[in-house]
Amino acid sequence: MRVGPSQDEIRRQNLGALLRYVHLHGATTRAELTNVLGLNRSTIGALTADLAAAGLVTEGAPKETGRAGRPSLVVRPESERIFAYAYSIEVDRLRAARVGLGGAVLDRRELDRPRGLTAAEAAPLLAGVVKEMRQALPNGAVCVGAGIAVCGMVRRDDGLVRLGPATGWVDEPIGAALGAELGVDVPVSVGNVADVAAFAEHARGTAAGCDNVIYLYGDVGVGAGIIAGGRRLTGHGGYSGEVGHMVVVRDGARCECGNRGCWETEIGEHGLLRAAGRSDARGREALLEVFDAADRGDARAQTAVRQAGDWLGFGVANLVNIFNPEMVIFGGTMRDLYLAAAAQVRSRLNSNGLPACLEHVRLRTPTLGTDAPLIGAAELAFDRLLADPLDVG
Amino acid sequence: MRVGPSQDEIRRQNLGALLRYVHLHGATTRAELTNVLGLNRSTIGALTADLAAAGLVTEGAPKETGRAGRPSLVVRPESERIFAYAYSIEVDRLRAARVGLGGAVLDRRELDRPRGLTAAEAAPLLAGVVKEMRQALPNGAVCVGAGIAVCGMVRRDDGLVRLGPATGWVDEPIGAALGAELGVDVPVSVGNVADVAAFAEHARGTAAGCDNVIYLYGDVGVGAGIIAGGRRLTGHGGYSGEVGHMVVVRDGARCECGNRGCWETEIGEHGLLRAAGRSDARGREALLEVFDAADRGDARAQTAVRQAGDWLGFGVANLVNIFNPEMVIFGGTMRDLYLAAAAQVRSRLNSNGLPACLEHVRLRTPTLGTDAPLIGAAELAFDRLLADPLDVG
Repeated sequence: MRVGPSQDEIRRQNLGALLRYVHLHGATTRAELTNVLGLNRSTIGALTADLAAAGLVTEGAPKETGRAGRPSLVVRPESERIFAYAYSIEVDRLRAARVGLGGAVLDRRELDRPRGLTAAEAAPLLAGVVKEMRQALPNGAVCVGAGIAVCGMVRRDDGLVRLGPATGWVDEPIGAALGAELGVDVPVSVGNVADVAAFAEHARGTAAGCDNVIYLYGDVGVGAGIIAGGRRLTGHGGYSGEVGHMVVVRDGARCECGNRGCWETEIGEHGLLRAAGRSDARGREALLEVFDAADRGDARAQTAVRQAGDWLGFGVANLVNIFNPEMVIFGGTMRDLYLAAAAQVRSRLNSNGLPACLEHVRLRTPTLGTDAPLIGAAELAFDRLLADPLDVG
Repeated sequence: MRVGPSQDEIRRQNLGALLRYVHLHGATTRAELTNVLGLNRSTIGALTADLAAAGLVTEGAPKETGRAGRPSLVVRPESERIFAYAYSIEVDRLRAARVGLGGAVLDRRELDRPRGLTAAEAAPLLAGVVKEMRQALPNGAVCVGAGIAVCGMVRRDDGLVRLGPATGWVDEPIGAALGAELGVDVPVSVGNVADVAAFAEHARGTAAGCDNVIYLYGDVGVGAGIIAGGRRLTGHGGYSGEVGHMVVVRDGARCECGNRGCWETEIGEHGLLRAAGRSDARGREALLEVFDAADRGDARAQTAVRQAGDWLGFGVANLVNIFNPEMVIFGGTMRDLYLAAAAQVRSRLNSNGLPACLEHVRLRTPTLGTDAPLIGAAELAFDRLLADPLDVG
């Protein structure tokens, strides 16, 4: 049962709300904070003082406004000092970043990931990258946590990677492995890459302010991060959003999951390359070559891309009827496919979607681009801080 | 931004939490309320006194416990006095009920609905039924609102029925029409029948305590009410859950929505009757005859039922991969189909569902049976009361 919170809980909530606001919106005047948070001036002053004492924000004079009267002080997140480590484990790449409070990527590194690399092999590689980043740390910098975006199904309770069909991972405790390599007392959160990218675009990207969003992410396979009623949809165990394994062709092509006719066999990397007559190729470069060839008029590539675009619209229409979202975002290889076949996507969506479900839906590509998984992974780490700012600091 | 609530908001929250608890769990001792709500005894006493003064609860001695010491007073919802009107508009039936605070159906009436009956024709019929129920009202009874469950897509903002393919309704303001016929100052809420039935089963039925639930409801078509993360999924406009229009057969049979190959063409009334060679029949009785015939060994009926059961499992597997629910409930005609073909449903679900998504999912029939839409419609009305108990009373 939900009951009223205690005074101490209210203070924590208010501290979190203020810090979250400047984390998402950047430097903000006290006057604006008073306004948007619905708290009085003295409360804002006290909360800001607490956060400043903990080293999470600074206060200072605003830039010259040209207006008369005493200007309101500006509250800024400590973007250089407070940071999280973020990792993105993709089929062909390993990426790591240091992301400051406020969402800026302060340092960014990338490695190729040979297909077949295990979690045990990935952890020391990523830890090595972190070691390099640490050498470039400014004085007084404080790490508040780490987040990992993984191409796979992640158990909500403990971050175990249950299954990554495209990486071949089964029951990999990558969070614990990486935490051990980091060798410090940093909490590590793990999330599915599509969920995490959706979180980032919802927090500070193209879906900011949208309560019902589907973020479709393609790497080799396809998954979705879903925001419903303003909150991340996780499902019971954390595995929701496996839209790539919605079967669209009964007894269709064999999928990496072992089933047949999954949506990703039509729109994922393997299906598209096979349809374009390039079954021996793989990776995003090979996909981009198919889109280029289609663009140059290669008939087989054009047919493959249009067909895949039609299937993309087909599945999106099903999801639009099921979720009634206000926005669908195409990320990763789904972005490339959407941009190459937008006419087919829209046409199939319009013919299969119910009119009421379609009427406010916008199709978008990510604002945060390929940084979305990293920024989302960092948001997982910041979420702990924002829930109780003075507990970390 | 979420900030801390005021003292007055906290009191309203606490009043709502206490009243919701006894509404859902029935007579409860003060000691248990203190425990489950996490409030101290004097606060519980004050809240109970306020609710009793408003006529929403009564307090009294418990039944003899046989234990020593002063027994804790028992708080009961005013189930006979405080009530809501509930309506369910189905393809072949109109139903109305008076439901008491606490969820008991106090009075229940039913009419046949000729297919083709318009909203303008339905409203006076239902109002007539209410007039009869009013004559049987006990002294001092107070109506706190009305709720309507409709077989169709309902706009969240104002309850407009945008489209009911099976009823032929388009943009029908049934809430306003019925409100006008009721001729009183009673707020009327409207919801899709599957959403409302899911709400009821989640509040006080088989899904109580489950945070991630799919309630599949079949009448002529098929829809779902979805609970995700403990909350009702509505989508942007209120139209989510149109799972019957998930396309499962590209270029399949024509659906009432105008599209082809929608899931409901395989598992809905028309598809099943057609497959059983009874295209001229319709209604639930005709469906039950097919299930009976299959049970008696009629080969064509058996094939039709098994095939439909396989398709039922096929779509449920897609939804399980998308939502990772802990429970799927089969209501309306989906209950009949599930019970007739459970082996096919489970077999297809197990072969198409991802193992991690399947591992905790339970398949269930509704505890509240055919009352679920009525009880859910009443819950829509009670929800307003529970949000701010002293505003109604």
